[in-house]
Amino acid sequence: METVKVIKIGGNIIDNEEALTAFIKDFSTITGPKVLVHGGGKLATKLAAKMNIPVNMNEGRRITDADTLDIITMVYAGKINKNIVAQLQANNCNAVGFSGADGNTIVSEKRPVNSIDYGFVGDVKNVNTNVLEILLNNEITPVFCAITHNKNGQLLNTNADTIASELAIGLSSIFNTELYYCFEKNGVLEDVEDDDSVIENINTESYKTLKDNHIIFEGMLPKLDNCFHAINKNVQKVCIGKSDMLFKTNNKHTTITQ
Amino acid sequence: METVKVIKIGGNIIDNEEALTAFIKDFSTITGPKVLVHGGGKLATKLAAKMNIPVNMNEGRRITDADTLDIITMVYAGKINKNIVAQLQANNCNAVGFSGADGNTIVSEKRPVNSIDYGFVGDVKNVNTNVLEILLNNEITPVFCAITHNKNGQLLNTNADTIASELAIGLSSIFNTELYYCFEKNGVLEDVEDDDSVIENINTESYKTLKDNHIIFEGMLPKLDNCFHAINKNVQKVCIGKSDMLFKTNNKHTTITQ
Repeated sequence: METVKVIKIGGNIIDNEEALTAFIKDFSTITGPKVLVHGGGKLATKLAAKMNIPVNMNEGRRITDADTLDIITMVYAGKINKNIVAQLQANNCNAVGFSGADGNTIVSEKRPVNSIDYGFVGDVKNVNTNVLEILLNNEITPVFCAITHNKNGQLLNTNADTIASELAIGLSSIFNTELYYCFEKNGVLEDVEDDDSVIENINTESYKTLKDNHIIFEGMLPKLDNCFHAINKNVQKVCIGKSDMLFKTNNKHTTITQ
Repeated sequence: METVKVIKIGGNIIDNEEALTAFIKDFSTITGPKVLVHGGGKLATKLAAKMNIPVNMNEGRRITDADTLDIITMVYAGKINKNIVAQLQANNCNAVGFSGADGNTIVSEKRPVNSIDYGFVGDVKNVNTNVLEILLNNEITPVFCAITHNKNGQLLNTNADTIASELAIGLSSIFNTELYYCFEKNGVLEDVEDDDSVIENINTESYKTLKDNHIIFEGMLPKLDNCFHAINKNVQKVCIGKSDMLFKTNNKHTTITQ
């Protein structure tokens, strides 16, 4: 069984032209099947401001109304995705940009309205890997933005970390699958102010203790939940850290195990 | 040899939600390999206005500066392309959205600056059909927006009619290829005011006469040049008319022959 790497990058790379160029150059050197998932960074917020479209928040959560969905689709699937694909091609990495609608790869359903109506936000229902399998077996690299669809013609906004874990889980029935969350820190930190305080391994048991003792920065919890979701669903390896962990040996990072 | 249909739609369909929904429903019923190419319609101009980005014209031609390229990428590759793909999926047509950067399918070069600097406009250099062939042979429908790349990381704006003819020419080495330009008229008209005055066949000789006698509306000439380019380069069938020509028998349209 071949190994596929699913690699997610976030704002610290996407919003920094130099960092993105360097990352894409490194990413292109990875041999074997690979999938790139990118978040949206700050561009969507900037575009909304330019167009005088208000950012709707409810209890600290962004609401995706129709205008915001349009902006996200334009920025994530258009500007960011196509520029990444073009840069990968320049580095001889044959890439094809994807949303979850393309190839019907990620079907989601609009989050039900309970106390909050999140608008056009999709929770992943199922992942179809047949198109991805064809491409990966032909040395073509899918590049995913964080947009899904409901199979009834509606695009939906889905968290990029979730897209990465669901794709990894989906692909794990065909490939040995490794999932890498790249972000601005060296990993999960014991002290959020100290980038050297990396917790090198977290398993289900220690995760519970770390949570109970409020040691992990709260913003990390959804990402870690995605990690455990993946490692409990057949993904072989899950890591969090700077993208250096992929390209440099001995680069500190956090590995998630069952 | 199987037959592939390359179908280009323009503003009259893209800008009209009802027309687009109806077209996509019909398009999804086409059996056999097919490629959809869409223009941009009026959305890009509207977005530019909303963002106070001026439309730069030079001698009646739009100049694609960096801001305009961003808008085009967002609207064409993002909003329009992904919404079409999602609607195709809703009709059980398994589609994947493409720009020329995806799969390195269409490489162009920035138009040289002579009397006019058109900005980020790309003239097609070559078409790579290997990814398209893989998808088409797996009953997956590529959906192209009118964006190409220069293989050095730069996206470029390319005319959608040109994209359609170049894709058809490229695919003609693998498939019997048919090219359909769908627009708001029944075909090439003798009298632009009379939609019944369709010229049902135009060949190289009659085209010259029609041009010399200024019978054809001038705006049609670039489209017709694309048609003759295709028919002279191995494309088996080239038609211009309303999209009805694809779905209704006896629907008047113009056929281009050598």
